[in-house]
Amino acid sequence: MYSHKPFMLIVSAPSGCGKTTLLHMLRDKVDGIGFSVSHTTRPKRKNEVDGIDYHFVSRDEFAKMLDAGFFVESATVHLNAYGTSFTAVDTLLAKGDDVLLDIDVQGMQRLKSAKRYDFISIFIMPPSLGELESRLRRRNTDSDSVVRQRLKNAEKEIKSASLYDYMVVNDDLNAAFLELSAIITAERLRTARIIF
Amino acid sequence: MYSHKPFMLIVSAPSGCGKTTLLHMLRDKVDGIGFSVSHTTRPKRKNEVDGIDYHFVSRDEFAKMLDAGFFVESATVHLNAYGTSFTAVDTLLAKGDDVLLDIDVQGMQRLKSAKRYDFISIFIMPPSLGELESRLRRRNTDSDSVVRQRLKNAEKEIKSASLYDYMVVNDDLNAAFLELSAIITAERLRTARIIF
Repeated sequence: MYSHKPFMLIVSAPSGCGKTTLLHMLRDKVDGIGFSVSHTTRPKRKNEVDGIDYHFVSRDEFAKMLDAGFFVESATVHLNAYGTSFTAVDTLLAKGDDVLLDIDVQGMQRLKSAKRYDFISIFIMPPSLGELESRLRRRNTDSDSVVRQRLKNAEKEIKSASLYDYMVVNDDLNAAFLELSAIITAERLRTARIIF
Repeated sequence: MYSHKPFMLIVSAPSGCGKTTLLHMLRDKVDGIGFSVSHTTRPKRKNEVDGIDYHFVSRDEFAKMLDAGFFVESATVHLNAYGTSFTAVDTLLAKGDDVLLDIDVQGMQRLKSAKRYDFISIFIMPPSLGELESRLRRRNTDSDSVVRQRLKNAEKEIKSASLYDYMVVNDDLNAAFLELSAIITAERLRTARIIF
């Protein structure tokens, strides 16, 4: 019917909140969302594909790109650098896709203050810190000290939730997915974005 | 999980856009929406119940209430006066319901400038003016001159759509209902409204 001016959709969440699963569901079930592929210095995990999950680069390469103003946003999380290139974002927006960026609180704040893009932000919350701890321990991929560090970071990040436009609590995966989809549907119906 | 501060939801549409049907669907299928009962001087139609569909009052009674500052908003449409009382709205908000008001463009604008309530506004659009005309003629409740007046009003009202927060095109009833529901779901997830 009417089309809309595409926007940038920021999704942040403490580790263990199910963000990755939710973003895969969005990718599979919601049309018109472009996922920009970030650059990272983090080592590639099993099952990850270079150029699909991330562009895996060395610290040196990353530093050069950063100096050259190559990134829309970049941040260091758990000692690894992550960055989203202007090229990746602009290509998707030009296609008319809404661009989903999976970045942390710092990245969101920098992007917000840059005011370059029309963007909306969503923070995914765990039902509680206790539940988050059980999930991280069940996942069984991290040592006890890493789990404790992630919980400490989570607690700090949750305090920033109010900086986001929306908050989705991932208690039930399907309910959280429906809420995320509803936010995207609603933002596409904003008259300020409708192209008449 | 978390509750939200209730808001006011304004829905406007030219006649024949399916607004009444959509609002009935919302009433039946979406929890937590309160429908305030308006006062009107319009004659009661068959099937309408006083105190449920509207509070039907005489022109004199209406004028007295208006003078006494009884109404949040009031407007004259097709020569009949309509008004929403503060009591009706405040009672619903105090219960924690989001209050849905079915008012016209003038009423929305007055309410917006009053800034008394946290409100969001949705404009329901016909797929096209040609389709709207067919619908009004199929409905077969109005004379040709009334249909023509309604179309003229519709054309004027559609120009005001951009004053609203959201725009929903009612081409397919279920699709339009899902879009309305998505807007309500999303607005309930705004961090500014979440009660921690």
